[in-house]
Amino acid sequence: MAKKNRQFLLAERPVGLPDDSTYNFIETDLPKLKENEVLVQGEYLSVDPYMRRRMSEGQSYIEPFKLNEPLKGGTVGTVIESKHPSFQQGDTVTGLLDWADYTAVPGEQLRKIDRDQASITTALHVNGMPGLTAYFGLLDIGQPKEGETVVVSGAAGAVGMVVGQIAKIKGCRVVGIAGSEEKNAYLINELGFDAAINYKTTNNIGQELKEACPNGIDIYFDNVGGEISDAVFSLLNFHARVALCGQIAHYNDTKVEMGPRFLTTFLKRSLLLKGFIVTNYSDRHEEGTQQLAKWLSEGKIKYKENIVEGLENAPDAFLGLFRGDNLGKQLVKIR
Amino acid sequence: MAKKNRQFLLAERPVGLPDDSTYNFIETDLPKLKENEVLVQGEYLSVDPYMRRRMSEGQSYIEPFKLNEPLKGGTVGTVIESKHPSFQQGDTVTGLLDWADYTAVPGEQLRKIDRDQASITTALHVNGMPGLTAYFGLLDIGQPKEGETVVVSGAAGAVGMVVGQIAKIKGCRVVGIAGSEEKNAYLINELGFDAAINYKTTNNIGQELKEACPNGIDIYFDNVGGEISDAVFSLLNFHARVALCGQIAHYNDTKVEMGPRFLTTFLKRSLLLKGFIVTNYSDRHEEGTQQLAKWLSEGKIKYKENIVEGLENAPDAFLGLFRGDNLGKQLVKIR
Repeated sequence: MAKKNRQFLLAERPVGLPDDSTYNFIETDLPKLKENEVLVQGEYLSVDPYMRRRMSEGQSYIEPFKLNEPLKGGTVGTVIESKHPSFQQGDTVTGLLDWADYTAVPGEQLRKIDRDQASITTALHVNGMPGLTAYFGLLDIGQPKEGETVVVSGAAGAVGMVVGQIAKIKGCRVVGIAGSEEKNAYLINELGFDAAINYKTTNNIGQELKEACPNGIDIYFDNVGGEISDAVFSLLNFHARVALCGQIAHYNDTKVEMGPRFLTTFLKRSLLLKGFIVTNYSDRHEEGTQQLAKWLSEGKIKYKENIVEGLENAPDAFLGLFRGDNLGKQLVKIR
Repeated sequence: MAKKNRQFLLAERPVGLPDDSTYNFIETDLPKLKENEVLVQGEYLSVDPYMRRRMSEGQSYIEPFKLNEPLKGGTVGTVIESKHPSFQQGDTVTGLLDWADYTAVPGEQLRKIDRDQASITTALHVNGMPGLTAYFGLLDIGQPKEGETVVVSGAAGAVGMVVGQIAKIKGCRVVGIAGSEEKNAYLINELGFDAAINYKTTNNIGQELKEACPNGIDIYFDNVGGEISDAVFSLLNFHARVALCGQIAHYNDTKVEMGPRFLTTFLKRSLLLKGFIVTNYSDRHEEGTQQLAKWLSEGKIKYKENIVEGLENAPDAFLGLFRGDNLGKQLVKIR
């Protein structure tokens, strides 16, 4: 009996939060390989906030998903068949593959993973895109110095947890902002954050930040935006740096929100703000990957995963990112 | 008969625009010199938008003026008496002196000017703080490359005019934003700007900017803020740079204004924004001063001054900055 391939296609571009009408979940035959292509059976699929932006049209750093074509996401899987000289059946690989059981992809877009070095899922977080995002955003834009105070929003997400741990390695005071007591306890007790603020239950985030950051804030690694950032901005020290990594508070906005104009503060205090995406640092990925793998093997960086079973549950796992469900990296176990 | 000294003291901190109650215009005896001090008779006083911020309390890059003490501003004048070995009677000097006929000041805070090299008033703009502000903000933060598009707001002010001319020297397309047809004609016809937009008469600044910047905007040198910046931000290219030099639209705000949240744009396009003040570059002032003097002597940088007669008119000349009166550098001829 011929194998079948389940796939999620983008049925229509969502306005606001994605829902059932966003996706078309279909079953097709397995793709036929062209020269230099590799057929990969997915094991784990990563869902990440930035995917929401690819669901919409418009100018961004990454091209939008195409209508009636498969959604794509970071995946680890196993090579089933290869027409590329560098890959053979049984290899474990990672790449940007379809939200599907199987994907045919040019070999150049895959990277081999050593199953013995670390859990293969780390290729989707600490040893992958989220880890590199944390590494370059914090170190290149943030330029942390010993004794400085770093605040990270979305602290319990895949990027945020690595940001905080690298900042600790660099000798900084680290304050996380996340959305549950469970998350905050994890950040403090397991990852060594100095303090953590629950933005969902606080009555006065400005006051809590002030208490958590007695020397002000030198680096803000922002995954969130909105009112959380408003509160942080007012506490930035002279010459502080803002690494703008995400604005999850706004990805589902249907119009431009209004907020306080803060540029007078940025002027008065000679502040730096830089938006970035990990691909800006493509020429340094090797450096980042090696350093992160080293810290991981030394136990200096820990991680946590939240695994949903079954490809069919990918849309809900993705929505959970916006509800703030996930403590740690949200993954989907495809089979 | 003993000479008298007229001085403007800060009588109270203004809320919104300064008015008569802000100042106390008094007459005193001439100050007595201490060791290492120099008595300077002011010839020209510079009034600049940043002084508004010094009239208020609160954290900024420069300490507030003190109540019941003289306001201060960039001044050129003549040494009347000296107890400092580096200065003697008759020297022409510049420094941050009182809004007054005479100031006693430590010699270390003065710089000698060569009357033969250029008009002494240029020490208050092209060859002084505004010129250096333009130089470092554009070159260090903006990093202009040939063929890029530079937009400067407050283009007809002392800083803006130098920004545009340096950008032309660097081979950029330069678009100014200013508040009168007369200013814009000057920018285009005399200073070589490629286009200029009148923000006071336009019905659609976004559309005008789009037409003036067919390849988008690579560098925005912002002196103004507010809705002008909102329009510019939406046209910034990937990896564009914003040198945040002033926010004159907001200096008289009595509360934080609301505006569109724009950080998603900064994220999507990997934009850089940096607030700065010329003193951040103190260790490179010599480099900037020499280069600016060279360009001035070569005729590559031109200037225009707007001189008000009489120290007693300094408050009105200062207010004119916020009305947008001045084409070119606003100066007060003290005597």
